[in-house]
Amino acid sequence: MPARLNIGKLVVIGTGLIGGSFALALKRARAVRRVVGVGRTRRNLAAALKLRIIDEASQDPARAVRDADLVLLAMPVGQMAAVMSAIAPHLPPHAVVTDAGSTKSDVIACARRFLGGHLARFVPGHPIAGTENSGAEAAFAGLFRERNVILVPLRETTAVATRLVRRAWEICGARVVKLDAAEHDAILAGVSHLPHIVAYALVNVLARRPNAPRLFGLSAGGLRDTVRIAGSSPEMWSDICVANRDALLAALEDYENELEQMRAAIEGADAAELKRMFAQARNAREKWLVKKRR
Amino acid sequence: MPARLNIGKLVVIGTGLIGGSFALALKRARAVRRVVGVGRTRRNLAAALKLRIIDEASQDPARAVRDADLVLLAMPVGQMAAVMSAIAPHLPPHAVVTDAGSTKSDVIACARRFLGGHLARFVPGHPIAGTENSGAEAAFAGLFRERNVILVPLRETTAVATRLVRRAWEICGARVVKLDAAEHDAILAGVSHLPHIVAYALVNVLARRPNAPRLFGLSAGGLRDTVRIAGSSPEMWSDICVANRDALLAALEDYENELEQMRAAIEGADAAELKRMFAQARNAREKWLVKKRR
Repeated sequence: MPARLNIGKLVVIGTGLIGGSFALALKRARAVRRVVGVGRTRRNLAAALKLRIIDEASQDPARAVRDADLVLLAMPVGQMAAVMSAIAPHLPPHAVVTDAGSTKSDVIACARRFLGGHLARFVPGHPIAGTENSGAEAAFAGLFRERNVILVPLRETTAVATRLVRRAWEICGARVVKLDAAEHDAILAGVSHLPHIVAYALVNVLARRPNAPRLFGLSAGGLRDTVRIAGSSPEMWSDICVANRDALLAALEDYENELEQMRAAIEGADAAELKRMFAQARNAREKWLVKKRR
Repeated sequence: MPARLNIGKLVVIGTGLIGGSFALALKRARAVRRVVGVGRTRRNLAAALKLRIIDEASQDPARAVRDADLVLLAMPVGQMAAVMSAIAPHLPPHAVVTDAGSTKSDVIACARRFLGGHLARFVPGHPIAGTENSGAEAAFAGLFRERNVILVPLRETTAVATRLVRRAWEICGARVVKLDAAEHDAILAGVSHLPHIVAYALVNVLARRPNAPRLFGLSAGGLRDTVRIAGSSPEMWSDICVANRDALLAALEDYENELEQMRAAIEGADAAELKRMFAQARNAREKWLVKKRR
């Protein structure tokens, strides 16, 4: 059991799937007294209020953080610079700030630029959770249960701040793992950012065919699962791809090389070589799934 | 309700996921009296017998088809030539032969070469169903329920033979759709064969990284679903890729071009262009899913 937590005012900037689920989980555990949600659109904030994800809505992050105890930055990473520079002059000294951005090197660079005076209380983080749905309506308290949350504390971050954020995620049911920013970004480029590119690209080539409706009509579970994440937020994912550009380009290059090898084997009608490559993939996947189940 | 069917002896060559599920569904509907399973390995045949998927096992297709009423060829497509040439001299004149091969042009070419005297009773087919598991143990009677089965009758195929095969699949719970072989192969290259390549290649590039165990450990549902079909049979899928080479290479080229466009946008940090491409994919996927639910 994680230690009890008593957060007076939580400010969630970006009350979508991640921010909303974080707020719901902490509320359900009675670990927070009041949640203020900050967002860009009235529609989503109204939904978050109605669903009791937040107690109060605001479109002004600077105003909202004035008496905050914990601030979660859960907007698309492309908005980090604007939000950090807006809130920095208004953060109370004791307030702990964390984020849920899918990339870490760029968020940290952004924090060093705009959150300078507050780095001791900034705990970069990334919950490895989500669904293909977005917005407050998609939020649910159980989203982080048994999921990994990666924390990437800076050398300036105090142990007290890190401990608070770790506790909050543990109360949400998550496992907390510490990584450095470069390793985080390389791993996520592989297991998350590249798969999104792969899925979006696959849907696009099929949708462009003249017989696309018939084609999708004849598809089965294989395609459906392979492209499930092509339902993810285009804005969030275009930001992530740009923010994690270098690691993603490296992963994409490896992937394109692998495809080229498979293409060569298909061209050469080399069933034995294809079978070898496919068996390698199947074995790796099975080993991974067995470990996951343990 | 499909019309009743009374098949005396069904011979299933390849008693794996597809052949086994076909046998189970027809048995459950009491549409068949006796099922003979033909396979290459005693282990799989023993499992099929134990699970009562088949009533009798044989490793000799020529012998097994001698008094058959319906023969389903459900081995990997790479074995079509060998099996067709083995059974052709022994098929009783009235026996209807169909197949479950994932490619149609090459199976038809094979039939024209090896099944020549029997084309009037040959009904090329393809059930669009499957899971990432293979073998008799993976078979279940409900596999084809509400799935599409594509039939590609030849100009030589009699209406009686087509009707029998159609009824059998309808009894399994499937919807039967007729297509010509070229359209079938182009569609399947897109919705099935290319996604398998995509998934196998993705697992391989990740598994090759030195920190692969940690990386897979930090992955979530997105990767898991995207690569589910990388668990599929390497032998079956290498055969399919070679058999449907031309259509698959065309689909793969489109896919690589799409990836290149995404790569260019990432390199140029062009979030707007990425967002446009991702939104296109998300919209196409949503349109498709809405139609599926209807």
